[in-house]
Amino acid sequence: MLIHSASQLLTLAGGPQRGPRLGSLGLIVDGAVLVRGSHIEVIGSTTELLKQFPSEERIDASGRVVMPGFVDPHTHLVWAGDRAAEFEMRLQGKTYLEIMAAGGGIVSTVRATRQAGVDDLLAQARERARGMLRSGTTTAEAKTGYGLELQAELRQMEALLRLDAEGPLELAFTFLGAHAVPEEFKGDPQGYTRRVSEQMLPGLLDWWRAHAAQRPLPFVDVFCETGAFDLAQSRAILEAAQRLGFPLKIHADEFDNLGGAGMAAGLGAVSADHLVKTSPEEIRQMAESGTAAVALPCTPFGLAEAHYTPARAFVQAGGLLAIATDLNPGTAWCESMQFALALACRYLRLTPAQAVAAATINAAAAIGLHERVGSLEPGKQADLLLLSVGDYRHLGYRFGGNLVERVIKRGEVVV
Amino acid sequence: MLIHSASQLLTLAGGPQRGPRLGSLGLIVDGAVLVRGSHIEVIGSTTELLKQFPSEERIDASGRVVMPGFVDPHTHLVWAGDRAAEFEMRLQGKTYLEIMAAGGGIVSTVRATRQAGVDDLLAQARERARGMLRSGTTTAEAKTGYGLELQAELRQMEALLRLDAEGPLELAFTFLGAHAVPEEFKGDPQGYTRRVSEQMLPGLLDWWRAHAAQRPLPFVDVFCETGAFDLAQSRAILEAAQRLGFPLKIHADEFDNLGGAGMAAGLGAVSADHLVKTSPEEIRQMAESGTAAVALPCTPFGLAEAHYTPARAFVQAGGLLAIATDLNPGTAWCESMQFALALACRYLRLTPAQAVAAATINAAAAIGLHERVGSLEPGKQADLLLLSVGDYRHLGYRFGGNLVERVIKRGEVVV
Repeated sequence: MLIHSASQLLTLAGGPQRGPRLGSLGLIVDGAVLVRGSHIEVIGSTTELLKQFPSEERIDASGRVVMPGFVDPHTHLVWAGDRAAEFEMRLQGKTYLEIMAAGGGIVSTVRATRQAGVDDLLAQARERARGMLRSGTTTAEAKTGYGLELQAELRQMEALLRLDAEGPLELAFTFLGAHAVPEEFKGDPQGYTRRVSEQMLPGLLDWWRAHAAQRPLPFVDVFCETGAFDLAQSRAILEAAQRLGFPLKIHADEFDNLGGAGMAAGLGAVSADHLVKTSPEEIRQMAESGTAAVALPCTPFGLAEAHYTPARAFVQAGGLLAIATDLNPGTAWCESMQFALALACRYLRLTPAQAVAAATINAAAAIGLHERVGSLEPGKQADLLLLSVGDYRHLGYRFGGNLVERVIKRGEVVV
Repeated sequence: MLIHSASQLLTLAGGPQRGPRLGSLGLIVDGAVLVRGSHIEVIGSTTELLKQFPSEERIDASGRVVMPGFVDPHTHLVWAGDRAAEFEMRLQGKTYLEIMAAGGGIVSTVRATRQAGVDDLLAQARERARGMLRSGTTTAEAKTGYGLELQAELRQMEALLRLDAEGPLELAFTFLGAHAVPEEFKGDPQGYTRRVSEQMLPGLLDWWRAHAAQRPLPFVDVFCETGAFDLAQSRAILEAAQRLGFPLKIHADEFDNLGGAGMAAGLGAVSADHLVKTSPEEIRQMAESGTAAVALPCTPFGLAEAHYTPARAFVQAGGLLAIATDLNPGTAWCESMQFALALACRYLRLTPAQAVAAATINAAAAIGLHERVGSLEPGKQADLLLLSVGDYRHLGYRFGGNLVERVIKRGEVVV
């Protein structure tokens, strides 16, 4: 398949983009891509490729941007139920305590998720995955974290593995048993920390070897935040995970700075995410480490909060910046990386080019998949988008809509 | 056509919703609508209507919300070119003056629009109209205002009339010759005010009688703002329009309070729009008048500004509140009323029910079309949406996507 005559072909070639390199689009005017099977074989100009490969099946991308599929490196894709009623209560001026008393908050999602079977979880997640795909996301990270007990967490994980096997959305997996302290451990986060470290993580490892042995181990993530897990508890969980061989992620500094980002950098985590309140010292530590910084602008937007990740400080420090949706039922039910990108331009002060890189090659790096996806280069997976516009800057400039006209995943047109 | 089994049928019956009535959805659980031709004939419960009309063609809306199509009461739908480069310059830290020096700002849209023929204007507006329709907008107001000379303004108007005739998006028309002071009148807003009042408006009236005599006269609108038209100039233009019989609208208080909203209320304008900096006294004047208050939350969002219309104050004062996208190339290229609604919940502090009413029946009232569209009632036009969800509160709660699954305009499925 030869996709040709793209008004702008964004390759994002050259690997993850640290610091001032962020925004290197590798833009080819009147570009073309030769796809064979599930992979990219050649990238070049339309003139060259039409001459070199005269008898390939063709897709005419005139007047269109062709670019890598978006990679969404932070989602809570699998849960049961919704929290629309809680959203309404918040707008009516109800307090957090009133909402909790009415059965709201993460507790309500945990309750619904624990009660749901794998088929039900899969069906609900599938709808969201379709929405993501239609918006141009071809690869996403997806977390458990609404079970908060081993079997319920594993049902979430099983739903994710089945969803990935169904395709076309490709998933990377994260175990977030330490998303919150469950009701059974109310007032005893230390006890739940031990439960996660000593029972759930070893149980996950056994289960993974039995059910997904051919796959790399999932990430282990922890919500390091006031009201969830403090720094010492977060460290205990991440170190236990590391001893078992799991790669690491962390939720840090969404509301308070507890030191989670610096710790994650020290532990060699693949990414630290949220990072609204991260200190300048930790921004430096992260930039010096290999740990990617994942900004989640949909979350402050969802909560109508004024503070966003100081993304430019991460870039200026030489860090690796990515953006994600944080798709979740409480604060940000957003399936669209295009919208995350529109927010990134306005509230993280990224240019459209920087935001595109943060949503593709850097997002792939934040889940360790940058060798396979996130850019258009010979040998990489053929995950690409045709936009309905000819100038990539319309991503960011325009908002609230969907500029993705066609989605190709592993060489097949899927939208 | 019998649309039945809607998990929630939102009728919005009972007319425009002033003050505390805002948010009266007229919700029928397991509701049904009988459409005959282009109009609604009966509204009721599924059980009743299936029994009463057993042999109608059926649409099963199980698990879905059925509601009136959105009415977008403030758009600048017709222009040529785009300002993506200017958006990028702004993010790179360029000043307003630097952007102007590089040929940016409204001047650039005026230049492109003046150069475009009617066919070209129509083709570009048609794309946007499709985007609006896919997002659930079935009726919209659309303004001229990028010509700033009579013939160029009339070409915009002709494009709008042709677009409306094509359908399915139904338009209400507004002449905004006083959108900005054109370069030919630089430093002489008073001179352009006379030009608009004494030549352009009479010219518009003659043209309308020749080209659209069977239609009601369009609205005449003015941008009453620092740097555009001051209060006296705005009044001169609106009074000249009123003498010729045109109904009135105004852009007021987007950045500065010049007194435009109070003046518009005094003149009996159909609506005053923006209203970010409106004074409490003028909020009272508007509530006592018949003038609708149209909030445009996409504009501060597009500019990443912190100040939004004090919507609750308008409601508390007993006013008629509507929301719109303000679709335009400079500050808010947003085609989706769903997104305006998501902003209205977060930044205007409306509940989803209030935002739905502000986006349907009240939006229809803000363009004088509430007898025809904006609610589902026997005798009204059959403009309705099927959402992909069963709870209307997902509008607002979720964002960045499109929950509209099917659009019916004048009784025909168009999306």
